[in-house]
Amino acid sequence: MPMTATVAQWDMFEASFEGPREGNPFLDVQLEAVFSQHAREVRVPGFYDGDGLYKVRFMPDNPGPWTFTTRSNAPALDRQEGGFEAVAPRPGKHGPVRVANRFHFAHADGTPFLPFGTTCYAWTHQPLGEQEKTLRTLAKTRFNKVRMGLFPKDYPYNTNQPLHDVFVRGADGALDFDRPNPQSFRHFETQVRALGEMGIEADVIIFHPYDRWNYSGMSEAQDYRYVAYLTARLAAFSNVWWSLANEYDFMLDTKPMHQWDRYFHIIEENDPVGHLRSIHNGAPAASYDHRKPWVSHVCMQHWDVKRTGEWRQTWGKPVVNDEPEYEGDLVEAWGNISAQELVHRFWTMALRGAYAGHGETFAHPEDLIWWAKGGELHGEAWKRIGFLRDVLEESAVNGFEPIDASVRFSGRISGARDGDTTILYLGEHQPAIWPYGLPKDDGEYRVEVIDTWNMTIEPAEIVPAPANHPVRHGAVVLKTEPAAAFAVKLPVRPYLAIRVRPA
Amino acid sequence: MPMTATVAQWDMFEASFEGPREGNPFLDVQLEAVFSQHAREVRVPGFYDGDGLYKVRFMPDNPGPWTFTTRSNAPALDRQEGGFEAVAPRPGKHGPVRVANRFHFAHADGTPFLPFGTTCYAWTHQPLGEQEKTLRTLAKTRFNKVRMGLFPKDYPYNTNQPLHDVFVRGADGALDFDRPNPQSFRHFETQVRALGEMGIEADVIIFHPYDRWNYSGMSEAQDYRYVAYLTARLAAFSNVWWSLANEYDFMLDTKPMHQWDRYFHIIEENDPVGHLRSIHNGAPAASYDHRKPWVSHVCMQHWDVKRTGEWRQTWGKPVVNDEPEYEGDLVEAWGNISAQELVHRFWTMALRGAYAGHGETFAHPEDLIWWAKGGELHGEAWKRIGFLRDVLEESAVNGFEPIDASVRFSGRISGARDGDTTILYLGEHQPAIWPYGLPKDDGEYRVEVIDTWNMTIEPAEIVPAPANHPVRHGAVVLKTEPAAAFAVKLPVRPYLAIRVRPA
Repeated sequence: MPMTATVAQWDMFEASFEGPREGNPFLDVQLEAVFSQHAREVRVPGFYDGDGLYKVRFMPDNPGPWTFTTRSNAPALDRQEGGFEAVAPRPGKHGPVRVANRFHFAHADGTPFLPFGTTCYAWTHQPLGEQEKTLRTLAKTRFNKVRMGLFPKDYPYNTNQPLHDVFVRGADGALDFDRPNPQSFRHFETQVRALGEMGIEADVIIFHPYDRWNYSGMSEAQDYRYVAYLTARLAAFSNVWWSLANEYDFMLDTKPMHQWDRYFHIIEENDPVGHLRSIHNGAPAASYDHRKPWVSHVCMQHWDVKRTGEWRQTWGKPVVNDEPEYEGDLVEAWGNISAQELVHRFWTMALRGAYAGHGETFAHPEDLIWWAKGGELHGEAWKRIGFLRDVLEESAVNGFEPIDASVRFSGRISGARDGDTTILYLGEHQPAIWPYGLPKDDGEYRVEVIDTWNMTIEPAEIVPAPANHPVRHGAVVLKTEPAAAFAVKLPVRPYLAIRVRPA
Repeated sequence: MPMTATVAQWDMFEASFEGPREGNPFLDVQLEAVFSQHAREVRVPGFYDGDGLYKVRFMPDNPGPWTFTTRSNAPALDRQEGGFEAVAPRPGKHGPVRVANRFHFAHADGTPFLPFGTTCYAWTHQPLGEQEKTLRTLAKTRFNKVRMGLFPKDYPYNTNQPLHDVFVRGADGALDFDRPNPQSFRHFETQVRALGEMGIEADVIIFHPYDRWNYSGMSEAQDYRYVAYLTARLAAFSNVWWSLANEYDFMLDTKPMHQWDRYFHIIEENDPVGHLRSIHNGAPAASYDHRKPWVSHVCMQHWDVKRTGEWRQTWGKPVVNDEPEYEGDLVEAWGNISAQELVHRFWTMALRGAYAGHGETFAHPEDLIWWAKGGELHGEAWKRIGFLRDVLEESAVNGFEPIDASVRFSGRISGARDGDTTILYLGEHQPAIWPYGLPKDDGEYRVEVIDTWNMTIEPAEIVPAPANHPVRHGAVVLKTEPAAAFAVKLPVRPYLAIRVRPA
């Protein structure tokens, strides 16, 4: 069979077929395809896109010819065949993001991915003009992940009608949770694709408790079908992350724990790409057990970011704190910290081996608040977060791992190393000189002082390290630790970092 | 017997007796007195003050006539009798500080005592001119407690010779830990008394690991005698607190846990006043078990002050965090936080039902650093801490207890109530309006906005509280919480507090 179609590796191949329209195709028709390359076979679920049209989407993870054969209980859809040639990735495309080096992430081609996400929960449900504005704003920022809900949102400052119903309405005007609205999904996909073209991951939130349309009240069977449908539609987008919920624990009364486990399994069964999978808590103490093997990384909310070490140790997976509170001035305590505090929390987490997420919640007369609706940013944190991303990416190899300086620091100072770059973040500490956590040998180093708020990087003034006081036991001198190789002179003010690299 | 002497209640009565000089009176001679008032008898240990002089000190806790009889193994000291008339306390004297209302403190006469301490570990071992400076500086501040070590200190920035040896030197020039140096103790007492006259409690640190004279290496028996001797000398000072150690856990190798328990017991056995007793840790995780019944209150060091609720719950006693890190610019991470951060930590702890302690550690060309040597203050935190004390004392009745606002706050905001005063401390949060934790009824209130850094108190602008969003379960509205009675309009900046009192 000649391979007429070509698709770049990590882009999407889509095959469409005419099939049954009668009954409820969403319930009645099963469709899947098996994509083959040499002896390798990949099962890919298909889906009904409405109007008698069925689709199968596939993201080739390897160049070369691929063929497929469909299987279906509908004869018109069964044993359909086709194929394409997967060619080299488009420039700048690195493939889906995976866990790398236990606590970090990388694209499929090995390029490190350091998540610097923001939150626009319901941006795809806003008027189209607002959505364009969101994309334009994102283009100005350095955010590379957006948390975004599939369902619309009903919540303080979120009371407008969504752009589309996610399920179609029956003759009685009520939503029919057995019939997804393909138009709504197609629009969502358009925006996932738009983000992908900007190099931004879509952290897709599948369930949340904040609605007035009863999406959160679907039956268990409807939930399972919805998750499978969504997976079939979205898994071939290389920039998708699965986030099972925003604040899953606020839905435990109607969606008990076994359902959450099952949602994970349904995704695993239907996502041949194996996109990242996480689940986000509401109450600080209500974490899902992120050690479960189907959870790829920890997605959480917690304001107390100096506990990062505990979280890494507890879960043993990458930690992404997507809600270390938001910059803003809302009445809600999660939405009114200062920009300086949010930037401080980003640096603190990053230099303890984890990642934070951004959100902005300034009150607006028309409730146009970035955290929910996107649109425009009004705050000061986002620029500094972009600066932090630039600083870290400049040295990214395997991910910044906390350095062992427990004796000196006792959790007070943040410091981490990646490759041959060490960065110490001093936060609220303001020493006049600082010798700890710096190289102990007398190699040649390039040492810089970073002002995390003013976004400056200056060569550091190197001064002799102070002599250490003798370590005594009573009157007996046990030892005197040698002085550090050098110390860095610092202006006495908070929110500074020190970067050390070989000269 | 006519009562010629009069002593104010809570002042000190002292009786002196000539006795044996030969041998080692510190080891050989036992002396105690029983003070009686009506049927009540109080056993009081005596002590040798050198030069053949023995003393018994007693702090009357009740007015009226008191008599005493001594008991001693030295005939010259046995069955000595005497007495005095205890009269009304001097103005401004309220008696020793006790635990009150489980998590708080009050003087013996019931006057609330809110500890606002500072730290001058070795101030009594500095040249006398420096000590006078320390007292003059303290007089300018609002500190009402000083942490101070009985032993001199050898530590970074602390290398000068002490004013006195605490034990006398033998013919070989070595310290004889069986012979206290009364001159040294008398000087220490002079300064304890000086603090008392200024209304300042002396938080006396009995052991610490930082010396080059081997005070920390005395034998177990010598330690026990030292603790008993110190107790006999100091217990009659109404402003003494017993702090068994600074960083006791750094001495556990030579002073195992049973010794620390025993020190407490020796104090209990020899302190008829029952002064406050605590013990201070070094490593954050190395707390002594403060639940032990002989510990009156928690003395600790920990930088993570939002854990105050955990500490109260764990120990069930007053919590005094005497080292939430120090304002300064030293190289050591415990000694270089900004003034703003230290003030923030004071407010955070105070409005979560506990107390913090101050220290100042700015590098000085002659190592004259307040935290160790006293002298002068150079920082900015102390004034704001005084302001906080004034604010809290204005309303002090039983002690500020945290208000239950767990749902809204999740540990993010600090808020507490004493009597009819509620104070919320918003810290790094900067809402434009704030309705939570305020009165729910429509009484008449006086509401003020406190700028904790600029030390201003302004009448608050009251605005309508925002309506609450419906609480839904899926599409079903369960309820809509009524709006708060009112909200407070705030400037959008951090470090503000709100005070609410009846009009």
